[in-house]
This record gives sequence, structure tokens and C-alpha cells, in this order.
Amino acid sequence: MFQFETTTACPDTKARTGKMTTAHGDVATPVFMPVGTLATVKSLSPEDLVACGAQIILGNTYHLYLRPGCDIIDAFSGVHAFMGWNRPLLTDSGGFQVFSLAKLSRITEEGAAFQSHLDGSSHLLTPESVIDIQNRLGSDIQMCLDQCIAFPAEKGAARDAANLTTRWAGRCRNRWQETGGPSRCGLFGIVQGGMFDDLRADSAGRLVDLDFSGYAVGGLSVGEPIETRLAVAEHTLSLLPPDRPRYIMGVGTPAELVELVALGADMFDCVMPTRNARNGKLFTSFGAINIRNACHAKETGPVDPACTCYTCTRFSRAYLRHLFMSRELLAYRLATLHNLFYYINLINDARAAVAAGRFAAFRKAFYAAQQATGPTGKEPCAGS
Amino acid sequence: MFQFETTTACPDTKARTGKMTTAHGDVATPVFMPVGTLATVKSLSPEDLVACGAQIILGNTYHLYLRPGCDIIDAFSGVHAFMGWNRPLLTDSGGFQVFSLAKLSRITEEGAAFQSHLDGSSHLLTPESVIDIQNRLGSDIQMCLDQCIAFPAEKGAARDAANLTTRWAGRCRNRWQETGGPSRCGLFGIVQGGMFDDLRADSAGRLVDLDFSGYAVGGLSVGEPIETRLAVAEHTLSLLPPDRPRYIMGVGTPAELVELVALGADMFDCVMPTRNARNGKLFTSFGAINIRNACHAKETGPVDPACTCYTCTRFSRAYLRHLFMSRELLAYRLATLHNLFYYINLINDARAAVAAGRFAAFRKAFYAAQQATGPTGKEPCAGS
Ligand SMILES: [Zn+2]
Ligand SMILES: [Zn+2]
Repeated sequence: MFQFETTTACPDTKARTGKMTTAHGDVATPVFMPVGTLATVKSLSPEDLVACGAQIILGNTYHLYLRPGCDIIDAFSGVHAFMGWNRPLLTDSGGFQVFSLAKLSRITEEGAAFQSHLDGSSHLLTPESVIDIQNRLGSDIQMCLDQCIAFPAEKGAARDAANLTTRWAGRCRNRWQETGGPSRCGLFGIVQGGMFDDLRADSAGRLVDLDFSGYAVGGLSVGEPIETRLAVAEHTLSLLPPDRPRYIMGVGTPAELVELVALGADMFDCVMPTRNARNGKLFTSFGAINIRNACHAKETGPVDPACTCYTCTRFSRAYLRHLFMSRELLAYRLATLHNLFYYINLINDARAAVAAGRFAAFRKAFYAAQQATGPTGKEPCAGS
Repeated sequence: MFQFETTTACPDTKARTGKMTTAHGDVATPVFMPVGTLATVKSLSPEDLVACGAQIILGNTYHLYLRPGCDIIDAFSGVHAFMGWNRPLLTDSGGFQVFSLAKLSRITEEGAAFQSHLDGSSHLLTPESVIDIQNRLGSDIQMCLDQCIAFPAEKGAARDAANLTTRWAGRCRNRWQETGGPSRCGLFGIVQGGMFDDLRADSAGRLVDLDFSGYAVGGLSVGEPIETRLAVAEHTLSLLPPDRPRYIMGVGTPAELVELVALGADMFDCVMPTRNARNGKLFTSFGAINIRNACHAKETGPVDPACTCYTCTRFSRAYLRHLFMSRELLAYRLATLHNLFYYINLINDARAAVAAGRFAAFRKAFYAAQQATGPTGKEPCAGS
């Protein structure tokens, strides 16, 4: 079970709003999806995620297949009950992790053979097996297995990987249909093709012919300049059918997300808010700060006076900095809560602006605020 | 402002119930106090502590004096606002940390000179300065500076330390009175004297002459056998006035706490529930388990079916084990929530049993359950 409909469109940009319907509820788009690789969004409980406004989260097939393994997930009939999350769940297929994490991976027509980064054990993920695994994980949105490549890549290597990804996508789609996928969940194809416009066009065209529930743009945020990233995204998004959700994988900064909304993207995920939180880098309406900087030591005000998250309504910068300097575990939860709240609500605000026909004004105000000097008129913090 | 009254007494043992009144509210005794050394009970928010049933928590003068330092606490007029905790707070004086953590400590009549374990900087804590610091921390219950000694100790060294502790206690009490302490908070004397009954009697007697708000038994859980610990505690508790609260510092296992309640102790603190939680050792009504053991890998039931904590009502053993094996931050919070809930409610249950005149039955049932084979009829887990 998976449906998507668009609801409003921005008159000035390609931004749009929509609604995805899944077996675990609806998702209003554009949407930011927190990354919960190992069936946990690092440091947060399911209730914390709801408090951040999360509508849907990510799990990862490669990671969950290796640990705890499907046998244990089976005892709960899926990740939802295992981790206590009853809203929608999207699972990444594991192609990127085989490329970035596994030892001695070897890609053949059949699939991706690799050794576990945990214990060196040997495994093979095929297009069929990643669908079978995602069926066991109980995902509401499944992703096809794709082959990821390094950046920069030669055109021949990029073409070969994109073509293999497309052939694998066809096999994924067959398996999804054979196993009753359409009645339970959506399946997304992943456009590859590196930074080459013609390869992207070819990849997108052949995936669209296969008629997926939605389409993802993979292979971004791999080291390319931001101008290249946005140009490739714009080109690729323009090739995708307007009646399907468009998912930009693994990107990016708040400003990048605002631009990608303007280019018509509907779904985002990124480790930046959660990973940066654990390093003390906090996103705010007036730019990012590093809470470890000494200038925050006696600040009795919150991280962002405009923020209504749990952390900002209850705790000061001074306390948060103290927790970070003391390496106290509470630091990571409070910082993650704030950053995810910021990301999720930035996209929620963008969605509301599109729906109200004032996205252009929202985008302008976003940039004006990001370059402001902070709520006190001072630089948020020197060196941050 | 500090008052104590006893409310009921056990007909079979020396157990009793009582009520402490402080500027931040009442505390029903016997009570277990979670340890929040650095103005945070590791991994938990203030709301989490309330959910565990915490009535009062501990902070530590040595640690908070060094980090974040009194200047920063001053900006919040005390630890309560700094950490967002509005229930009572007790602060330990730092004598134990100078002994156990600081580098190059040197004890003189004047006080304890030491080098910070953080940066090697030189400091001097005197009986007067620890009261001044605790005034700035805004504690509801202050502790006198005491000299701690190694175990085993020679009698001469134990006598010297107990005598110095008593002289320091007099100076602490004077400072507390000079600085308006009685209108704001209680001040407890700490009985020392090692494992020597006559030294304990001498120490207790001279402290009682000084008329403190309450009395603590220090110098236990330093490596002595449990029989010695309970014997020294029993002897020392018998020397303390019945109309003042009696606090056993830094002890102990669930069984030890039940025994100490039977001996008339009113207040407890211990890092065991919080520290063990972070290592996966969980206390249950049927004994302790190690959640990392493989036997829990597929257990869909909770840590303790009899427990109504957040962790046990929402998550399985399998999920908790997965979080521990993956070193996920949520593991530490969920485990800490459970262990603190267990400790706090064990003492709450003991208090209710005393109040209802059935403490002897409670104690018997506690031991019967602890030796049971777990809720499934199986050993909780081999090797745990
Ligand atoms: Zn916030
Ligand atoms: Zn529990």
C-alpha cells in the first residue's frame, strides 16, 4: 500500500506539497526523514522523535541485516515493533554501505558480495535478497539495490554503474511484485549516473519506464562542489514524473534543503543534524553555532530563542556547554533533539509556505535570518 | 529551612518512616537518592528523574566547584535552575573526591589542598569554603567536609581522621550558621572512625553534641566485607538521635539497602544502579541480569515483567540487548531509567511496608523473589 498525491504548487518555483499514504499513516511532503540506521535514531526514543515532529524515519538494510539480523527482527514481525516506532519507515537498500563500509566488496551482475565490517563474515546482497530483507523489516517504503561509485568517477565507470543499477532495479521490481509488495509498501528506484547529465537522463528514463512508486536521486553529497550538486539535482528532478515523490538521498545543509525544495524535491534524509549534534554543532535560525565554544559558558539563554524544542524551552547554552565539556550523555540527546527539531520544522515551514503561496518570501526570509548576527545582536559565537 | 519528623516505626525492626521538609519540597523517608555528580544524573533529563520517582538527587561539591565552577552556577543562582531540577538537592562536600580523585592531595588542620584531576590546577577546600560553595550551589542539604581514609586503615590513622573530621564539622557548623544556613537548608555531620566501634562511638558522640540537622555514616563501601559493613552501620546508627535523619553514604546492593532500612537508616545514595546500567547490568525483582548475554537476543518480553518503568513497558530485552551490542546511546538511558526506577521503588515499597506495619513480610518476600528463577521459570540468564 503506497499512494502519493500532490496538493499545492508554488507559482514562483518548482516547489510543491503532497501527501504520501502508507500502511503506518500519512506523510506530508516535503519531509525531512531522520536517519535511524540501526533501528534507533542515535540517542532518541520514539517519543522524542514524535516530539521533534518526525513523520517518517529511515532504517538501513545493510546494517539491520548484519545486526541484529533478520531472525531477531522476525520475532517482532518487523522493525516497527522491534524499536517501538509506529509511524512510517523507509529502508535504504544497503548499496551505499556495501560501497562505503564493507570490506572486500565485489560487484557482479548477480549482486554485491562483501565481508561484514563487524566480523569479516561473507555475504551476498542481490536485488532479490534486499527486497526479501526489506519485506522482513516491514518497511513502508523500500529502496532498490544500487551501485555507488567514488567521486570523481570516469564516465565509463559511471555509465556501467548506472546501467547495472537499472538492471538491478528491474529485478527488484519483479521481486517486489512477486512477494506482494504493492499491497504492503512502496518501492523506489534510484537514479545514478554520477555528475553526467546524459547518464542521469538515461538512468531516469529507464527507471521511469519501470514505473516505480517514487524515485530517488542517489550519488550526491559524495564530495562534489555544491554548485554541481544542485545542478545535477535540478537536471535529474526535471526528468522525473510529477505524480511520483522525488527523494534526494543524503543531502544536506539547511540552505541546500531549501534550494532542493525550490527544485521540486519531496523527501530528504541526512545524518548532518544528528551527527553534528553529537559534536556540539547546532543549527539555528540565525546560523550554526558550536556550543563548546567558551563564549557560551555563562549564557543563560537557550540555543535559539526562536526554537520551541524541548532543549531550548528547558535548558540554557551554559548548561548544554557544561554537559558537552564534561562528556555527559545527556548532551548528545539534548543536542540531537534540537537539531532534528530544527531540520524537521524547517521543512515543515517550507511546506506551509508553499501551501500558503508564499514560498518565495519564506526562502528570502530564511537567508536573511541565516546571515543575521544572532538574537542578541552579537555574533552567535566567534569561531563557531 | 530543614525539618525532619518520624511518622511510623516497624514493630519488628528498627525500620521507620519519616518526612524531611526542605525549601524545594518534602522528601518521604526512607529514600534512595540518585547520584547527579556534575549536575546531571548520567543520561537522564529532569523529567526522566521524576518519571523514576526521584524525590531528591545528589550533586557533588568537588566536581561542580571544578566544572563548571561557581561563577557559572552563580549566573543561575544555583544548581536547581542550572540543571532544571526543582525538587530537593543534597550536595556532598567533596572530601571523598579529594581522597579518591585529586592528585597530590595534602590534608592539614586548615583543610584539603589538592590538584584538580582535570587540569592539575591547585586548590584548597576548607570547612568554611565548602559551606560557602554549597551556599552558592543552593543545596537543600549540605554536608560537612570530612577526611576519608583507605581501607584497611591502622587505628591511629583512623582516629586522627575521625578527630580532624569532627573539628572540621564544628567549623562547618559555625560557617553554616554565620551565613544564614538554618533559614535555607540543613547541614549534616559525617561520622567516621573506620571499622573501629570505639572510634565510631567517639565520632558520633561529638558530632551529636554539635547538633546537626542530620547525620551521615561515611567511610563504608571502601572494600570491607559486607558483614563488617552492616555491623559498623548497625553500631553507628544506634548512636544517632532518633529525631534526626540518618544517611548511609555510598551503599549498596538492593539487599544491603533492605537490611539498612531494617537497621533504621533513612537516606541512601549509590552509583551502583546508574553505573551498572551503563554496563548492561540490570536489577530486577528476581535478581540481576546482564542484558548483553546472548540468551536475551530474541526475548520479546521486557527486562522485568513486574516493572512498570518506561523501559519495561515499551521495549523488549532483545531490543535493549541490540542497543548495547551496537553501543547505541539510547541503551544507556533506557538501562539507567530501569535501574533507578528499580532502586527508588524498592525503597518506596519498603517505606510503604513500614507504614503499613508489614515490613518483616516485605523483607521476606524480597529475598524469596531475589532467589527465584525469573518470570519464565528459567534462570534469568546463564552467566549473568
Ligand atoms: Zn531548540
Ligand atoms: Zn523496568
